[in-house]
Amino acid sequence: MELREDERIDDLEYKGLKIIQNCNGFCFGVDSVLLSDFAREIKENSEVVDIGTGTGIVSILLTSKTKLKSIYGVEIQEDVAEMASRSSKLNHLEDKFRVINANIKDIFDYLEPYKFDAIVTNPPYKKENTGVKNLDKRQLISRHEVECNLEDIITASYKLLKDLGEFYMVHRAERLVDIMVLLRKHKMEPKRIRFVHSKAGDKPTLILVKAIKGAREYLKIDKPLVIYKDNGEYTDEVLEIYDKKRK
Amino acid sequence: MELREDERIDDLEYKGLKIIQNCNGFCFGVDSVLLSDFAREIKENSEVVDIGTGTGIVSILLTSKTKLKSIYGVEIQEDVAEMASRSSKLNHLEDKFRVINANIKDIFDYLEPYKFDAIVTNPPYKKENTGVKNLDKRQLISRHEVECNLEDIITASYKLLKDLGEFYMVHRAERLVDIMVLLRKHKMEPKRIRFVHSKAGDKPTLILVKAIKGAREYLKIDKPLVIYKDNGEYTDEVLEIYDKKRK
Repeated sequence: MELREDERIDDLEYKGLKIIQNCNGFCFGVDSVLLSDFAREIKENSEVVDIGTGTGIVSILLTSKTKLKSIYGVEIQEDVAEMASRSSKLNHLEDKFRVINANIKDIFDYLEPYKFDAIVTNPPYKKENTGVKNLDKRQLISRHEVECNLEDIITASYKLLKDLGEFYMVHRAERLVDIMVLLRKHKMEPKRIRFVHSKAGDKPTLILVKAIKGAREYLKIDKPLVIYKDNGEYTDEVLEIYDKKRK
Repeated sequence: MELREDERIDDLEYKGLKIIQNCNGFCFGVDSVLLSDFAREIKENSEVVDIGTGTGIVSILLTSKTKLKSIYGVEIQEDVAEMASRSSKLNHLEDKFRVINANIKDIFDYLEPYKFDAIVTNPPYKKENTGVKNLDKRQLISRHEVECNLEDIITASYKLLKDLGEFYMVHRAERLVDIMVLLRKHKMEPKRIRFVHSKAGDKPTLILVKAIKGAREYLKIDKPLVIYKDNGEYTDEVLEIYDKKRK
Protein backbone atom coordinates (compact mmCIF):
# COMPACT_ATOMS: atom_id res chain seq x y z
CA MET A 1 0.00 0.00 0.00
CA GLU A 2 1.53 3.30 -1.08
CA LEU A 3 1.36 6.30 1.26
CA ARG A 4 1.55 9.94 0.25
CA GLU A 5 3.69 12.48 2.02
CA ASP A 6 2.23 13.36 5.49
CA GLU A 7 0.06 10.21 5.53
CA ARG A 8 0.37 7.37 7.98
CA ILE A 9 -1.32 4.03 8.60
CA ASP A 10 -2.92 3.73 12.05
CA ASP A 11 -3.96 0.46 13.61
CA LEU A 12 -7.59 0.84 14.77
CA GLU A 13 -6.83 -1.75 17.45
CA TYR A 14 -10.23 -3.22 16.63
CA LYS A 15 -10.23 -6.67 15.04
CA GLY A 16 -7.11 -5.92 12.98
CA LEU A 17 -8.62 -2.97 11.08
CA LYS A 18 -6.33 -0.20 9.87
CA ILE A 19 -6.83 3.31 8.51
CA ILE A 20 -4.83 5.79 6.45
CA GLN A 21 -4.86 9.29 7.91
CA ASN A 22 -3.24 12.64 7.28
CA CYS A 23 -3.24 14.28 10.65
CA ASN A 24 -2.20 17.63 9.22
CA GLY A 25 -5.60 17.47 7.56
CA PHE A 26 -8.20 15.87 9.79
CA CYS A 27 -7.71 12.88 12.08
CA PHE A 28 -10.64 10.75 13.23
CA GLY A 29 -11.73 11.26 16.80
CA VAL A 30 -13.61 9.52 19.58
CA ASP A 31 -16.90 10.87 18.12
CA SER A 32 -16.57 8.59 15.08
CA VAL A 33 -15.82 5.59 17.25
CA LEU A 34 -18.86 6.32 19.45
CA LEU A 35 -21.09 6.77 16.39
CA SER A 36 -20.04 3.41 14.94
CA ASP A 37 -20.91 1.79 18.26
CA PHE A 38 -24.25 3.64 18.62
CA ALA A 39 -25.15 2.45 15.09
CA ARG A 40 -24.38 -1.21 15.75
CA GLU A 41 -28.18 -1.82 15.79
CA ILE A 42 -28.02 -1.65 11.96
CA LYS A 43 -29.67 -4.84 10.76
CA GLU A 44 -28.14 -7.75 8.86
CA ASN A 45 -27.92 -7.22 5.08
CA SER A 46 -28.56 -3.48 5.38
CA GLU A 47 -27.51 -1.20 2.57
CA VAL A 48 -26.02 1.87 4.21
CA VAL A 49 -24.76 5.35 3.27
CA ASP A 50 -22.12 7.17 5.35
CA ILE A 51 -22.52 10.90 4.65
CA GLY A 52 -19.23 12.77 4.99
CA THR A 53 -17.17 9.64 5.44
CA GLY A 54 -13.83 11.48 5.77
CA THR A 55 -11.10 8.91 6.36
CA GLY A 56 -13.77 6.18 6.25
CA ILE A 57 -13.43 5.41 9.95
CA VAL A 58 -17.17 4.96 10.69
CA SER A 59 -17.78 2.80 7.61
CA ILE A 60 -14.76 0.61 8.25
CA LEU A 61 -15.71 0.00 11.88
CA LEU A 62 -19.34 -0.73 10.90
CA THR A 63 -18.29 -3.46 8.45
CA SER A 64 -16.95 -5.23 11.52
CA LYS A 65 -19.48 -4.20 14.22
CA THR A 66 -22.58 -5.09 12.13
CA LYS A 67 -23.57 -7.56 9.41
CA LEU A 68 -24.36 -4.85 6.88
CA LYS A 69 -24.35 -5.83 3.20
CA SER A 70 -22.72 -2.70 1.80
CA ILE A 71 -21.85 0.85 2.76
CA TYR A 72 -21.25 3.84 0.48
CA GLY A 73 -19.06 6.58 1.93
CA VAL A 74 -19.82 10.00 0.44
CA GLU A 75 -16.95 12.50 0.71
CA ILE A 76 -16.72 15.87 -1.01
CA GLN A 77 -12.93 16.32 -0.74
CA GLU A 78 -11.16 14.51 -3.58
CA ASP A 79 -7.91 13.76 -1.75
CA VAL A 80 -9.72 12.62 1.40
CA ALA A 81 -12.11 10.40 -0.62
CA GLU A 82 -9.15 8.84 -2.42
CA MET A 83 -7.43 8.16 0.93
CA ALA A 84 -10.62 6.52 2.31
CA SER A 85 -10.76 4.39 -0.82
CA ARG A 86 -7.20 3.18 -0.18
CA SER A 87 -8.16 2.37 3.45
CA SER A 88 -11.01 0.24 2.08
CA LYS A 89 -8.49 -1.72 -0.04
CA LEU A 90 -6.02 -1.94 2.84
CA ASN A 91 -8.72 -3.78 4.85
CA HIS A 92 -9.85 -5.89 1.85
CA LEU A 93 -13.28 -4.23 2.01
CA GLU A 94 -13.52 -3.21 -1.69
CA ASP A 95 -16.74 -5.24 -2.09
CA LYS A 96 -18.41 -3.75 0.99
CA PHE A 97 -17.15 -0.20 1.47
CA ARG A 98 -17.16 1.99 -1.66
CA VAL A 99 -16.30 5.68 -1.66
CA ILE A 100 -18.14 8.28 -3.74
CA ASN A 101 -16.36 11.58 -4.22
CA ALA A 102 -19.29 14.00 -4.34
CA ASN A 103 -21.19 16.71 -2.53
CA ILE A 104 -24.18 15.16 -0.74
CA LYS A 105 -26.38 17.63 -2.65
CA ASP A 106 -25.45 15.76 -5.86
CA ILE A 107 -25.75 12.25 -4.42
CA PHE A 108 -28.66 11.24 -6.65
CA ASP A 109 -26.32 11.45 -9.65
CA TYR A 110 -24.71 8.36 -8.07
CA LEU A 111 -27.27 6.53 -5.91
CA GLU A 112 -30.94 5.62 -6.33
CA PRO A 113 -33.46 7.28 -4.01
CA TYR A 114 -35.69 5.45 -1.45
CA LYS A 115 -33.47 2.35 -1.53
CA PHE A 116 -31.30 2.40 1.62
CA ASP A 117 -31.85 0.84 5.05
CA ALA A 118 -29.65 3.14 7.12
CA ILE A 119 -27.63 6.36 7.11
CA VAL A 120 -24.70 7.17 9.37
CA THR A 121 -23.22 10.65 9.55
CA ASN A 122 -20.64 12.59 11.51
CA PRO A 123 -21.27 15.96 9.84
CA PRO A 124 -19.46 19.29 10.18
CA TYR A 125 -20.40 20.58 13.62
CA LYS A 126 -20.21 24.33 13.28
CA LYS A 127 -22.52 26.74 11.55
CA GLU A 128 -20.81 28.40 8.60
CA ASN A 129 -20.72 31.80 10.24
CA THR A 130 -19.36 30.77 13.65
CA GLY A 131 -15.94 30.24 15.15
CA VAL A 132 -12.42 30.67 13.90
CA LYS A 133 -11.84 29.84 10.26
CA ASN A 134 -8.08 30.17 9.85
CA LEU A 135 -7.84 26.42 9.41
CA ASP A 136 -6.35 24.19 6.78
CA LYS A 137 -8.94 23.89 3.96
CA ARG A 138 -9.56 20.22 4.80
CA GLN A 139 -10.18 21.03 8.46
CA LEU A 140 -12.51 23.85 7.44
CA ILE A 141 -14.67 21.63 5.22
CA SER A 142 -14.68 18.80 7.76
CA ARG A 143 -15.64 21.00 10.70
CA HIS A 144 -17.76 23.86 9.32
CA GLU A 145 -20.96 23.86 7.30
CA VAL A 146 -19.20 25.33 4.28
CA GLU A 147 -20.20 22.86 1.58
CA CYS A 148 -23.39 21.49 3.10
CA ASN A 149 -25.38 22.11 6.26
CA LEU A 150 -27.41 19.96 8.62
CA GLU A 151 -30.63 20.46 6.68
CA ASP A 152 -28.94 19.36 3.41
CA ILE A 153 -27.83 16.16 5.15
CA ILE A 154 -31.27 15.45 6.61
CA THR A 155 -33.15 16.09 3.36
CA ALA A 156 -30.70 13.89 1.41
CA SER A 157 -31.06 11.18 4.08
CA TYR A 158 -34.85 11.26 3.84
CA LYS A 159 -34.64 10.79 0.09
CA LEU A 160 -32.03 8.00 0.33
CA LEU A 161 -33.93 5.96 2.93
CA LYS A 162 -36.75 3.45 2.57
CA ASP A 163 -39.79 3.99 4.80
CA LEU A 164 -38.79 3.28 8.42
CA GLY A 165 -35.13 3.49 7.40
CA GLU A 166 -32.71 4.42 10.20
CA PHE A 167 -30.60 7.55 10.57
CA TYR A 168 -27.67 7.63 13.04
CA MET A 169 -25.77 10.85 13.74
CA VAL A 170 -23.22 12.25 16.17
CA HIS A 171 -23.19 16.03 16.66
CA ARG A 172 -22.43 18.75 19.18
CA ALA A 173 -24.88 18.72 22.09
CA GLU A 174 -25.31 22.51 21.72
CA ARG A 175 -26.96 21.93 18.32
CA LEU A 176 -29.77 20.00 20.05
CA VAL A 177 -32.57 22.42 19.09
CA ASP A 178 -31.57 22.56 15.41
CA ILE A 179 -31.29 18.77 15.28
CA MET A 180 -34.72 18.11 16.84
CA VAL A 181 -36.46 20.79 14.78
CA LEU A 182 -34.94 19.78 11.42
CA LEU A 183 -35.44 16.05 11.95
CA ARG A 184 -39.12 16.40 12.76
CA LYS A 185 -39.61 18.98 10.00
CA HIS A 186 -38.39 16.40 7.49
CA LYS A 187 -40.37 13.48 8.96
CA MET A 188 -37.31 11.81 10.41
CA GLU A 189 -38.59 11.22 13.93
CA PRO A 190 -35.98 11.19 16.74
CA LYS A 191 -36.42 7.87 18.55
CA ARG A 192 -33.29 7.48 20.65
CA ILE A 193 -30.83 10.00 22.03
CA ARG A 194 -27.70 9.57 24.06
CA PHE A 195 -25.66 12.42 25.50
CA VAL A 196 -21.90 12.04 25.78
CA HIS A 197 -20.12 13.57 28.76
CA SER A 198 -16.35 13.91 29.05
CA LYS A 199 -16.57 13.09 32.77
CA ALA A 200 -19.53 12.08 34.93
CA GLY A 201 -21.29 15.22 36.17
CA ASP A 202 -19.90 17.43 33.36
CA LYS A 203 -22.26 19.06 30.89
CA PRO A 204 -22.74 16.94 27.74
CA THR A 205 -20.48 17.76 24.80
CA LEU A 206 -21.82 15.42 22.12
CA ILE A 207 -25.19 13.96 21.22
CA LEU A 208 -25.86 10.64 19.50
CA VAL A 209 -29.22 10.57 17.72
CA LYS A 210 -31.17 7.78 16.07
CA ALA A 211 -34.13 8.87 13.95
CA ILE A 212 -36.51 6.73 11.92
CA LYS A 213 -38.10 7.90 8.69
CA GLY A 214 -41.88 8.22 9.05
CA ALA A 215 -42.02 6.73 12.55
CA ARG A 216 -44.53 7.78 15.19
CA GLU A 217 -43.50 10.25 17.90
CA TYR A 218 -41.86 8.51 20.83
CA LEU A 219 -38.44 9.35 22.20
CA LYS A 220 -36.23 7.26 24.45
CA ILE A 221 -33.27 8.95 26.13
CA ASP A 222 -30.44 6.59 27.10
CA LYS A 223 -28.31 6.87 30.21
CA PRO A 224 -25.33 9.20 29.76
CA LEU A 225 -22.21 7.91 28.00
CA VAL A 226 -19.17 8.98 30.01
CA ILE A 227 -15.72 8.95 28.36
CA TYR A 228 -13.26 9.38 31.21
CA LYS A 229 -13.13 8.32 34.83
CA ASP A 230 -12.13 10.94 37.38
CA ASN A 231 -8.54 9.65 37.21
CA GLY A 232 -8.42 10.42 33.47
CA GLU A 233 -8.56 6.80 32.30
CA TYR A 234 -11.24 5.60 29.88
CA THR A 235 -14.41 4.26 31.53
CA ASP A 236 -15.18 0.55 31.24
CA GLU A 237 -17.89 1.29 28.67
CA VAL A 238 -15.50 3.17 26.39
CA LEU A 239 -12.90 0.40 26.77
CA GLU A 240 -15.59 -2.06 25.67
CA ILE A 241 -16.45 0.13 22.68
CA TYR A 242 -12.76 0.06 21.75
CA ASP A 243 -12.85 -3.72 22.35
CA LYS A 244 -10.07 -3.42 24.92
CA LYS A 245 -11.92 -4.53 28.04
CA ARG A 246 -10.37 -7.35 29.94
CA LYS A 247 -13.12 -9.97 30.23
CA MET B 1 -56.89 29.30 58.71
CA GLU B 2 -59.73 26.92 58.02
CA LEU B 3 -59.01 23.57 56.39
CA ARG B 4 -61.45 21.45 54.43
CA GLU B 5 -61.86 17.75 54.87
CA ASP B 6 -58.85 15.84 53.44
CA GLU B 7 -56.67 18.98 53.44
CA ARG B 8 -53.55 19.46 55.46
CA ILE B 9 -50.97 22.22 55.99
CA ASP B 10 -47.43 21.19 55.12
CA ASP B 11 -44.35 23.09 56.24
CA LEU B 12 -42.23 23.74 53.12
CA GLU B 13 -39.19 23.71 55.39
CA TYR B 14 -37.98 26.67 53.39
CA LYS B 15 -37.82 30.01 55.21
CA GLY B 16 -40.98 29.28 57.19
CA LEU B 17 -43.25 28.92 54.14
CA LYS B 18 -46.30 26.66 54.38
CA ILE B 19 -48.71 25.15 51.89
CA ILE B 20 -52.21 23.69 51.97
CA GLN B 21 -52.49 20.40 50.10
CA ASN B 22 -55.02 17.69 49.48
CA CYS B 23 -52.93 14.65 48.83
CA ASN B 24 -55.92 12.61 47.70
CA GLY B 25 -55.97 15.14 44.84
CA PHE B 26 -52.48 16.12 43.80
CA CYS B 27 -49.50 16.75 46.06
CA PHE B 28 -46.58 18.91 44.92
CA GLY B 29 -43.43 17.02 44.01
CA VAL B 30 -39.72 17.51 43.66
CA ASP B 31 -40.28 18.78 40.09
CA SER B 32 -41.94 21.96 41.41
CA VAL B 33 -39.14 22.53 43.89
CA LEU B 34 -36.51 22.09 41.15
CA LEU B 35 -38.40 24.46 38.83
CA SER B 36 -38.54 27.19 41.45
CA ASP B 37 -34.79 26.85 41.93
CA PHE B 38 -34.04 26.78 38.17
CA ALA B 39 -36.10 29.98 37.81
CA ARG B 40 -34.29 31.86 40.56
CA GLU B 41 -32.59 33.92 37.79
CA ILE B 42 -35.87 35.86 37.52
CA LYS B 43 -34.90 39.51 37.85
CA GLU B 44 -35.78 41.97 40.60
CA ASN B 45 -39.22 43.61 40.20
CA SER B 46 -40.32 41.10 37.59
CA GLU B 47 -44.02 40.59 36.94
CA VAL B 48 -44.52 36.87 36.56
CA VAL B 49 -47.24 34.38 35.57
CA ASP B 50 -47.29 30.79 36.88
CA ILE B 51 -49.31 28.72 34.40
CA GLY B 52 -51.03 25.77 36.07
CA THR B 53 -50.09 26.85 39.57
CA GLY B 54 -51.85 23.93 41.30
CA THR B 55 -51.28 24.24 45.05
CA GLY B 56 -49.22 27.40 44.39
CA ILE B 57 -45.97 25.74 45.38
CA VAL B 58 -43.78 27.25 42.62
CA SER B 59 -45.16 30.76 43.09
CA ILE B 60 -44.83 30.64 46.86
CA LEU B 61 -41.21 29.45 46.70
CA LEU B 62 -40.37 32.08 44.06
CA THR B 63 -41.61 34.93 46.27
CA SER B 64 -38.82 33.88 48.60
CA LYS B 65 -36.10 32.74 46.17
CA THR B 66 -36.28 35.87 43.94
CA LYS B 67 -37.11 39.57 44.29
CA LEU B 68 -40.06 39.41 41.93
CA LYS B 69 -42.68 42.16 42.20
CA SER B 70 -45.78 40.01 41.67
CA ILE B 71 -46.83 36.61 40.46
CA TYR B 72 -50.20 35.49 39.09
CA GLY B 73 -50.99 31.80 39.45
CA VAL B 74 -53.40 30.52 36.80
CA GLU B 75 -55.31 27.39 37.77
CA ILE B 76 -58.25 25.86 35.92
CA GLN B 77 -59.63 23.76 38.81
CA GLU B 78 -61.84 25.86 41.06
CA ASP B 79 -61.22 23.97 44.31
CA VAL B 80 -57.46 23.80 43.70
CA ALA B 81 -57.30 27.51 42.83
CA GLU B 82 -59.21 28.35 46.00
CA MET B 83 -56.80 26.22 48.04
CA ALA B 84 -53.78 28.00 46.47
CA SER B 85 -55.41 31.30 47.31
CA ARG B 86 -55.69 30.28 50.97
CA SER B 87 -52.01 29.24 50.93
CA SER B 88 -51.17 32.74 49.68
CA LYS B 89 -53.01 34.21 52.68
CA LEU B 90 -51.45 31.69 55.04
CA ASN B 91 -48.01 33.01 54.05
CA HIS B 92 -49.15 36.69 54.07
CA LEU B 93 -48.47 36.91 50.33
CA GLU B 94 -51.86 38.36 49.26
CA ASP B 95 -50.13 41.40 47.72
CA LYS B 96 -47.61 39.36 45.75
CA PHE B 97 -49.20 36.03 44.81
CA ARG B 98 -52.69 36.22 43.33
CA VAL B 99 -54.60 33.25 41.97
CA ILE B 100 -56.73 33.37 38.82
CA ASN B 101 -59.21 30.53 38.39
CA ALA B 102 -59.25 30.15 34.60
CA ASN B 103 -58.21 28.03 31.66
CA ILE B 104 -54.96 29.42 30.22
CA LYS B 105 -56.77 29.69 26.87
CA ASP B 106 -58.98 32.41 28.43
CA ILE B 107 -56.17 34.22 30.28
CA PHE B 108 -56.50 37.44 28.28
CA ASP B 109 -59.92 37.95 29.85
CA TYR B 110 -57.89 38.57 33.04
CA LEU B 111 -54.39 39.75 32.12
CA GLU B 112 -53.00 42.23 29.59
CA PRO B 113 -50.85 40.84 26.77
CA TYR B 114 -47.15 41.68 26.18
CA LYS B 115 -46.69 42.93 29.73
CA PHE B 116 -44.92 40.21 31.73
CA ASP B 117 -41.24 39.62 32.41
CA ALA B 118 -41.31 35.90 33.09
CA ILE B 119 -43.44 32.75 32.93
CA VAL B 120 -43.01 29.64 35.06
CA THR B 121 -44.90 26.46 34.35
CA ASN B 122 -45.08 22.87 35.52
CA PRO B 123 -47.66 21.69 33.00
CA PRO B 124 -49.47 18.37 32.64
CA TYR B 125 -46.82 15.94 31.38
CA LYS B 126 -48.77 13.39 29.41
CA LYS B 127 -50.38 13.63 26.01
CA GLU B 128 -54.14 13.35 26.27
CA ASN B 129 -54.28 10.01 24.52
CA THR B 130 -51.53 8.23 26.49
CA GLY B 131 -51.34 6.26 29.71
CA VAL B 132 -53.85 5.16 32.29
CA LYS B 133 -56.69 7.54 32.98
CA ASN B 134 -58.58 5.92 35.86
CA LEU B 135 -57.43 8.72 38.11
CA ASP B 136 -59.20 11.15 40.40
CA LYS B 137 -60.45 14.05 38.21
CA ARG B 138 -57.97 16.43 39.83
CA GLN B 139 -55.05 14.09 39.15
CA LEU B 140 -56.24 13.65 35.56
CA ILE B 141 -56.32 17.40 34.84
CA SER B 142 -53.03 17.99 36.63
CA ARG B 143 -51.18 15.21 34.84
CA HIS B 144 -52.75 14.87 31.38
CA GLU B 145 -53.23 17.37 28.59
CA VAL B 146 -57.00 17.27 28.98
CA GLU B 147 -57.81 20.96 29.34
CA CYS B 148 -54.78 22.47 27.60
CA ASN B 149 -51.71 21.12 25.86
CA LEU B 150 -48.09 22.19 25.60
CA GLU B 151 -48.72 24.31 22.51
CA ASP B 152 -51.56 26.18 24.27
CA ILE B 153 -49.18 27.00 27.11
CA ILE B 154 -46.39 28.16 24.80
CA THR B 155 -48.65 30.35 22.64
CA ALA B 156 -50.22 31.94 25.73
CA SER B 157 -46.74 32.51 27.18
CA TYR B 158 -45.55 34.22 24.00
CA LYS B 159 -48.52 36.57 24.14
CA LEU B 160 -48.10 37.29 27.87
CA LEU B 161 -44.38 38.09 27.65
CA LYS B 162 -42.56 41.28 26.73
CA ASP B 163 -39.83 40.95 24.10
CA LEU B 164 -36.91 38.99 25.58
CA GLY B 165 -39.18 37.85 28.41
CA GLU B 166 -38.19 34.60 30.09
CA PHE B 167 -39.99 31.25 30.10
CA TYR B 168 -39.10 28.55 32.65
CA MET B 169 -40.59 25.05 32.46
CA VAL B 170 -40.15 21.61 33.96
CA HIS B 171 -41.37 18.66 31.91
CA ARG B 172 -40.74 14.99 31.21
CA ALA B 173 -37.41 14.43 29.43
CA GLU B 174 -39.18 12.15 26.93
CA ARG B 175 -41.14 15.17 25.62
CA LEU B 176 -37.83 16.77 24.52
CA VAL B 177 -38.62 16.80 20.79
CA ASP B 178 -42.09 18.33 21.25
CA ILE B 179 -40.67 20.96 23.59
CA MET B 180 -37.82 22.03 21.28
CA VAL B 181 -40.03 22.04 18.16
CA LEU B 182 -42.92 23.98 19.72
CA LEU B 183 -40.70 26.54 21.45
CA ARG B 184 -38.82 27.41 18.27
CA LYS B 185 -42.03 27.36 16.22
CA HIS B 186 -43.45 30.07 18.48
CA LYS B 187 -40.25 32.16 18.59
CA MET B 188 -39.46 31.20 22.17
CA GLU B 189 -35.84 30.18 21.71
CA PRO B 190 -34.48 27.52 24.11
CA LYS B 191 -31.40 29.04 25.74
CA ARG B 192 -30.66 26.80 28.69
CA ILE B 193 -31.51 23.18 29.42
CA ARG B 194 -30.83 21.00 32.42
CA PHE B 195 -31.61 17.31 32.59
CA VAL B 196 -32.62 15.80 35.93
CA HIS B 197 -31.49 12.28 36.77
CA SER B 198 -32.79 10.25 39.69
CA LYS B 199 -29.30 8.83 40.27
CA ALA B 200 -25.98 9.62 38.57
CA GLY B 201 -25.66 7.46 35.47
CA ASP B 202 -29.42 6.86 35.13
CA LYS B 203 -31.30 8.13 32.08
CA PRO B 204 -32.80 11.59 32.63
CA THR B 205 -36.41 11.69 33.81
CA LEU B 206 -37.11 15.43 33.80
CA ILE B 207 -35.97 18.42 31.77
CA LEU B 208 -35.72 22.02 32.96
CA VAL B 209 -35.90 24.51 30.09
CA LYS B 210 -35.34 28.25 29.93
CA ALA B 211 -36.46 29.93 26.71
CA ILE B 212 -36.34 33.60 25.79
CA LYS B 213 -38.91 35.27 23.58
CA GLY B 214 -37.36 36.46 20.31
CA ALA B 215 -33.78 35.62 21.31
CA ARG B 216 -31.12 34.47 18.87
CA GLU B 217 -30.34 30.77 18.54
CA TYR B 218 -27.78 29.65 21.09
CA LEU B 219 -28.27 26.83 23.54
CA LYS B 220 -26.34 26.09 26.72
CA ILE B 221 -26.78 22.68 28.34
CA ASP B 222 -26.02 22.60 32.07
CA LYS B 223 -24.38 19.74 33.90
CA PRO B 224 -26.85 17.04 35.02
CA LEU B 225 -28.90 17.60 38.17
CA VAL B 226 -28.83 14.42 40.23
CA ILE B 227 -31.46 13.88 42.95
CA TYR B 228 -30.21 10.91 44.98
CA LYS B 229 -26.82 9.58 45.97
CA ASP B 230 -26.20 5.85 45.50
CA ASN B 231 -27.15 5.32 49.16
CA GLY B 232 -30.60 6.84 48.54
CA GLU B 233 -29.95 10.11 50.37
CA TYR B 234 -30.43 13.47 48.64
CA THR B 235 -27.33 14.86 46.92
CA ASP B 236 -25.70 17.97 48.36
CA GLU B 237 -27.13 20.06 45.51
CA VAL B 238 -30.70 18.98 46.25
CA LEU B 239 -30.17 19.63 49.97
CA GLU B 240 -29.01 23.14 49.04
CA ILE B 241 -32.10 23.64 46.87
CA TYR B 242 -34.22 22.61 49.87
CA ASP B 243 -32.06 24.98 51.98
CA LYS B 244 -31.12 22.13 54.31
CA LYS B 245 -27.39 21.94 53.65
CA ARG B 246 -25.23 22.26 56.72
CA LYS B 247 -22.91 25.20 55.94
